[in-house]
Amino acid sequence: MAAFSIHGDIVWTETKDSFRSIENGYLNIKDGKIESVSSENPGYETIETDGALVIPGLSDLHLHAPQYAFMGLYMDEELLDWLNNHTFPEEGKYGNMEYAEKAYSAFADALRTSPTTRVSVFGTIHTDTVLLLMKKLENAGLSGFAGKVNMDRNSPDYLTEDTSVSVKETERFINECNSFAEIKPIITPRFVPSCSDGLMEALSSIRKKYNLPVQSHLDENLSEIDWVKELCPWSRNYADVYRHFGMLGEESIMAHSVWLDSAEIDLLASTGTYIAHSPSSNMNLSSGIAPIRRYLEAGCNIGLATDVAGGSTISMFRIIEDAVGVSKLRWRFDEKSGSPLKFSEAFYLASKGGGSFFGKTGSFEKGYDADVVVLDDTESTVLRPELSAEKRLEYYAYRHADKPVKAKFLKGKRVL
Amino acid sequence: MAAFSIHGDIVWTETKDSFRSIENGYLNIKDGKIESVSSENPGYETIETDGALVIPGLSDLHLHAPQYAFMGLYMDEELLDWLNNHTFPEEGKYGNMEYAEKAYSAFADALRTSPTTRVSVFGTIHTDTVLLLMKKLENAGLSGFAGKVNMDRNSPDYLTEDTSVSVKETERFINECNSFAEIKPIITPRFVPSCSDGLMEALSSIRKKYNLPVQSHLDENLSEIDWVKELCPWSRNYADVYRHFGMLGEESIMAHSVWLDSAEIDLLASTGTYIAHSPSSNMNLSSGIAPIRRYLEAGCNIGLATDVAGGSTISMFRIIEDAVGVSKLRWRFDEKSGSPLKFSEAFYLASKGGGSFFGKTGSFEKGYDADVVVLDDTESTVLRPELSAEKRLEYYAYRHADKPVKAKFLKGKRVL
Repeated sequence: MAAFSIHGDIVWTETKDSFRSIENGYLNIKDGKIESVSSENPGYETIETDGALVIPGLSDLHLHAPQYAFMGLYMDEELLDWLNNHTFPEEGKYGNMEYAEKAYSAFADALRTSPTTRVSVFGTIHTDTVLLLMKKLENAGLSGFAGKVNMDRNSPDYLTEDTSVSVKETERFINECNSFAEIKPIITPRFVPSCSDGLMEALSSIRKKYNLPVQSHLDENLSEIDWVKELCPWSRNYADVYRHFGMLGEESIMAHSVWLDSAEIDLLASTGTYIAHSPSSNMNLSSGIAPIRRYLEAGCNIGLATDVAGGSTISMFRIIEDAVGVSKLRWRFDEKSGSPLKFSEAFYLASKGGGSFFGKTGSFEKGYDADVVVLDDTESTVLRPELSAEKRLEYYAYRHADKPVKAKFLKGKRVL
Repeated sequence: MAAFSIHGDIVWTETKDSFRSIENGYLNIKDGKIESVSSENPGYETIETDGALVIPGLSDLHLHAPQYAFMGLYMDEELLDWLNNHTFPEEGKYGNMEYAEKAYSAFADALRTSPTTRVSVFGTIHTDTVLLLMKKLENAGLSGFAGKVNMDRNSPDYLTEDTSVSVKETERFINECNSFAEIKPIITPRFVPSCSDGLMEALSSIRKKYNLPVQSHLDENLSEIDWVKELCPWSRNYADVYRHFGMLGEESIMAHSVWLDSAEIDLLASTGTYIAHSPSSNMNLSSGIAPIRRYLEAGCNIGLATDVAGGSTISMFRIIEDAVGVSKLRWRFDEKSGSPLKFSEAFYLASKGGGSFFGKTGSFEKGYDADVVVLDDTESTVLRPELSAEKRLEYYAYRHADKPVKAKFLKGKRVL
């Protein structure tokens, strides 16, 4: 099907402040790209959705595949204890292909039926199981990036690499994942505390050599920030460490970024670095609430993220809900941090906002990749007949976050 | 079955600080009461759950039946706007039996398959449809209270009663719901802004005459609190208004109670008044985060509540998750408000804590009402074989909040 239409109630956001929608409309797709949204059928072969909601695929800018197994567990601890007591021991298991096969299958299956089409995923230090993960993500109909994690200090023995091995394995990883069409490699220093300056320098060189994006963690937790100050006394702030190693920019995702100071906000905004806002995780791990309104006003690039398994959901709808919710609490505690996010704004960040990291995705404007999700909302409120498509989407997002989607297309190709 | 056992992995909280559990155990029930939990089968007829989790029924201390239809909608507004723009217009429809039949059926169905066994529900001002609601709740296997709402000022015309009509209808309501075995009447002044002093006095008299409990709203939103100060200049604080009208005590539920000052905390603690903590609603309506640790330390009676539809869930598991989550954010913004709630504490509040309002329910101690919920957690993580029953419950609560429960018993009688 070089050209086809999807017929349904079509909703998307081109700007954050309002939805666009055409009910009983046609989403017209040609050669994998959005051609138009129209009220009339342009005469293409048409996929009927029986009055379902048709929305852009959502982008999850940050999640950890090896943490999916304990998502929803161990929620009584803060970041650094939680890492040492649960996360690292679990990640240690992914040197075992058999275990990874089982656990990554469950992870990919969950994403397959979710509204997510694009991801940027952390694996573990173990190259071979990260390659397995990429294959599973690709088979599950996703596009995006996955990274072999680098860690050469301040980690348990079983997750601490020799710096030279970490570097060598990273190049092997990059070379061995050539065969994937949709899931590409991303340089993934875990975070400053677990990567020596030498490792960071080497990763920065590899990144330039292969022209790859990068993902890491920034300003998640106050104790972590103090620790980075001790580890890098030469730095002006946490973000400055990544800047120093050439790891900021439009090809860079900095997860969390809860506690950016003014200088860091300016630095991320001026470099175009993406903030992966992870409201569920930042609540679960007592990290705080990122002042997203301030970041938006500063012109930062922002997407949303589940941060499995700091986040206790793999559903971007739940993350949209949480982003709206915690922004209200932040505003209540500190009105200076700016007005709460509206539903349309959170949806925009989850679709076009974060999607822009992957190219032109997350909107139904002409020339965008045809990443499309179809939602069956016949199971709905008694008020459904009087609701607009936008309101039906709000209801679905709040009430059916974990329901498998009805159909999904990636670059015009049906994947579910 | 005068005596029987339920065989499964049994988990409950007798105190808030830790779970009790017996895996592969027998919950022994006689004449509708818990007799014991044992590792051995006492020889009663046994209901097999095939290794499911067996927990006490949960109590939802505050929710609005007529708001269920728009639960998950209109989340971009604060309390007073949200009431005027959406809540009141919807509640106005419940003078119509046909509409109420449809909407209350959906509400009762949702509760029927939920882990909730006890409720304290707001209806609307319309006596006849509140009676219909009570019948539906009773048929859905629930126990607890439902109230005809009283409003005689500061409300739209279609929801403003003449004081005398409001009083008369309240007595009619009380007299006409005699036939229900499990759902009993509760006096329900909506909140101070919508009830004149004269109405409050009359309701207080009716309450004494019929020896009934009472439910209302307290200190939810800062604008609401300012308004109450204007309306009742004679009061020392918002809680003092309810005290003045004899509406505090162990038979009283005060919803929200987000912004209690020290005097109000002392007043609620000393009178034994129940706080219905509604974390989801308090987030959605930008109300704030109740400092539950402080209230616990002051000795307040506290239960959890969905507050449908300020809350965007009818699942008490989701409320447990939210109670834990927002307590972490509160602590992060104001460490003086006390340490975050642990999962066991939130579960305790949702079971035995709030359950105590209804009598001896919410625990598996001898003599407690046999309110029992069975959860099928075979759909679980790859880690399940190594998890304790308590951890399996945490996983279930975070991951399967909306999944229909496998079986449910009220006072030893199977209702699902």
